[in-house]
Amino acid sequence: MLQISKRGIEMPASPIRKLVPFAEAAKKKGTKVYHLNIGQPDIETPPAILDAVKHADIKVLEYSHSAGNESYRRKLVQYYAKNNIHITHNDIIITTGGSEAILFGFMACLDAGDEVIVPEPFYANYNGFAIQADVKVKPISSSIETGFALPPIADFEKAITPKTKAIIVCNPNNPTGYLYSAAEMETLKQIVMKHNLFLFADEAYREFCYDGNHTSAMHLQGAEQHVVLMDTISKRYSACGGRIGAFITKNKEVLDAAMKFAQARLSPPFYAQVLGEAAVDLPDNYFDTTKAEYKLRRDTIVKRLNNIPGVFCPNPGGAFYAMARLPIDDCDKFCQWLLEDFSHEGATVMLAPGTGFYSSKGLGKQEVRLAYVLNVDAINKAMDCLEVALEKYPGKNK
Amino acid sequence: MLQISKRGIEMPASPIRKLVPFAEAAKKKGTKVYHLNIGQPDIETPPAILDAVKHADIKVLEYSHSAGNESYRRKLVQYYAKNNIHITHNDIIITTGGSEAILFGFMACLDAGDEVIVPEPFYANYNGFAIQADVKVKPISSSIETGFALPPIADFEKAITPKTKAIIVCNPNNPTGYLYSAAEMETLKQIVMKHNLFLFADEAYREFCYDGNHTSAMHLQGAEQHVVLMDTISKRYSACGGRIGAFITKNKEVLDAAMKFAQARLSPPFYAQVLGEAAVDLPDNYFDTTKAEYKLRRDTIVKRLNNIPGVFCPNPGGAFYAMARLPIDDCDKFCQWLLEDFSHEGATVMLAPGTGFYSSKGLGKQEVRLAYVLNVDAINKAMDCLEVALEKYPGKNK
Repeated sequence: MLQISKRGIEMPASPIRKLVPFAEAAKKKGTKVYHLNIGQPDIETPPAILDAVKHADIKVLEYSHSAGNESYRRKLVQYYAKNNIHITHNDIIITTGGSEAILFGFMACLDAGDEVIVPEPFYANYNGFAIQADVKVKPISSSIETGFALPPIADFEKAITPKTKAIIVCNPNNPTGYLYSAAEMETLKQIVMKHNLFLFADEAYREFCYDGNHTSAMHLQGAEQHVVLMDTISKRYSACGGRIGAFITKNKEVLDAAMKFAQARLSPPFYAQVLGEAAVDLPDNYFDTTKAEYKLRRDTIVKRLNNIPGVFCPNPGGAFYAMARLPIDDCDKFCQWLLEDFSHEGATVMLAPGTGFYSSKGLGKQEVRLAYVLNVDAINKAMDCLEVALEKYPGKNK
Repeated sequence: MLQISKRGIEMPASPIRKLVPFAEAAKKKGTKVYHLNIGQPDIETPPAILDAVKHADIKVLEYSHSAGNESYRRKLVQYYAKNNIHITHNDIIITTGGSEAILFGFMACLDAGDEVIVPEPFYANYNGFAIQADVKVKPISSSIETGFALPPIADFEKAITPKTKAIIVCNPNNPTGYLYSAAEMETLKQIVMKHNLFLFADEAYREFCYDGNHTSAMHLQGAEQHVVLMDTISKRYSACGGRIGAFITKNKEVLDAAMKFAQARLSPPFYAQVLGEAAVDLPDNYFDTTKAEYKLRRDTIVKRLNNIPGVFCPNPGGAFYAMARLPIDDCDKFCQWLLEDFSHEGATVMLAPGTGFYSSKGLGKQEVRLAYVLNVDAINKAMDCLEVALEKYPGKNK
């Protein structure tokens, strides 16, 4: 028999997308589904950057440089400088989404069997890239009780083995929305310096911080050789479909290695580089409106959640996600039940089961992730559904 | 010391691009460089498909489906039907270039240490994807004497081990331009059926066949479960920068596995899917002009090459590459010398050293690949340069 690969078997299906068939069935029945399950913002892509693509003067749609268009990389230097991140265009490789930046990081810095430590719950696709790179993801649990703050140093020390090569941290965090403080980032710096590890920093949501400033891993003085920034324009400019990200490091050896992976796939997509380049010229107040909108949504959803009996949702400091603990037996069952067996005034809500963001077995069973990517009115209606659903759900915890 | 990965060290730098600094230096000196080194067509991207992107009505640049836009996949079914390849949109995953399709194939079908057989010389980036997937590329040499025809079955049989999981074939071939005959494709079918292997078919140049018809691996009756087609619109529509390809198979298990890798990276780039979808509606005679132009160039370059004393270039049946044997000591030295130490009437020519396309040590040292992606006038001038260069080159074979 013709066999697929073991890694093809082990590769996890997307925990966020596996409920899609149930959502489709619900819609076919005529039920309105409020999608809080996926980080696809509803915010309009700025027309000015869409126009830049429309007006691009292209005769031959050529390969870009494998590191991305030089004009875009030079422009990005300005963007990062505004964020107090000081780099040159030679420190940047433009990638196909943040996804490819993560894969390049795993490939360039870790070998088969090496370990990467990640605070749990974490962005589920790290698992997929780890399987591709044959790397082991070692979770350290953070807790909903502390709002998913950075686990204590002792937990890191316990998890570190001779195989440990890196720590990956998403700040502000997906799925928890937690915004790591300057002190926590400093702690991470101490750990990576002491144990000689790479620090992979996924900062896709840098702009979306509501109760404090963002500390980039690139701000950590003295850790320059350890830090790899994995970035993307997807959420920043509501441009997820463009598939443009960046792999940034001051470690030349790492950059040169990543560059060879970049050369193998020839170049990042051209069009969205044009879009990304134009985005750097958006007015400085561009993020103000978007941020204000997300903050309003966060305040709304967190308040509504905590007003439901038995529900607990810490207030997330950034990104556009909240993790909530629900009074239920099993989030996977509950999320499916919401789509299959429930509706309230012709509507239901789609959530991401918490278990998909944990790799330690048994964790997250009472948790769900809510992406507040809908407007306040829709969020309120979705919360109405959730409130009624939690009254009716047969697997409710007493 | 912070160490990069072994695979990061082993990963080959692009053999095609490593001469770039020498070309840049030559240009700085004022020398005109004829680029025959890289498969970047000069043919204009059809304005109609560029316009489709300009006119795309986008409010939010959202993630596509991980398998690509359904409308595009449905449209592609029409394109393939015209090529006598009968599939449904559910057999297709849209990929980020053909590159990603190759990577998905390696990841989904082979495990670490498994082997893939490839006729040599071959597209150098297969090596890069193999290193990422920790897969071993096993070359079987084809020879310039036979115009790079498929090696005899006995050579495949000799190379097959219990670790062998697949054969990869590029048809028409990059770098040789060789067009595999229906009989040769049938031979490959016999081998993969007998030894229970996957057949990966890279058919990026399907339309560019000058002396015969193209036999797709998808035409091989009875081998449906073995065949994975790795395709791209890059060369077809002169749209290399779009980064849109396709992973196509009737083997559902393989497709499902590849789909999980596709989900991990979320989606292929949106814009070029719009372009690719529009391309299917180009008039049926679109390829006639392009093909006629490439054929004229091929005839020109092959004739010029064979008229140079000591040079031998078999007539390639497809793609837009020719491999030629030159009367030289070492193609790497020669290609660098052309850029560093030579000019003729203010110009020189950039070629791809043959060694970069072989993995067997010592092969290809007298060979170069020429991509005929320049117009006939430029090709003639480039051949003038080559002719004079071969007279003057100090490392000429006597």
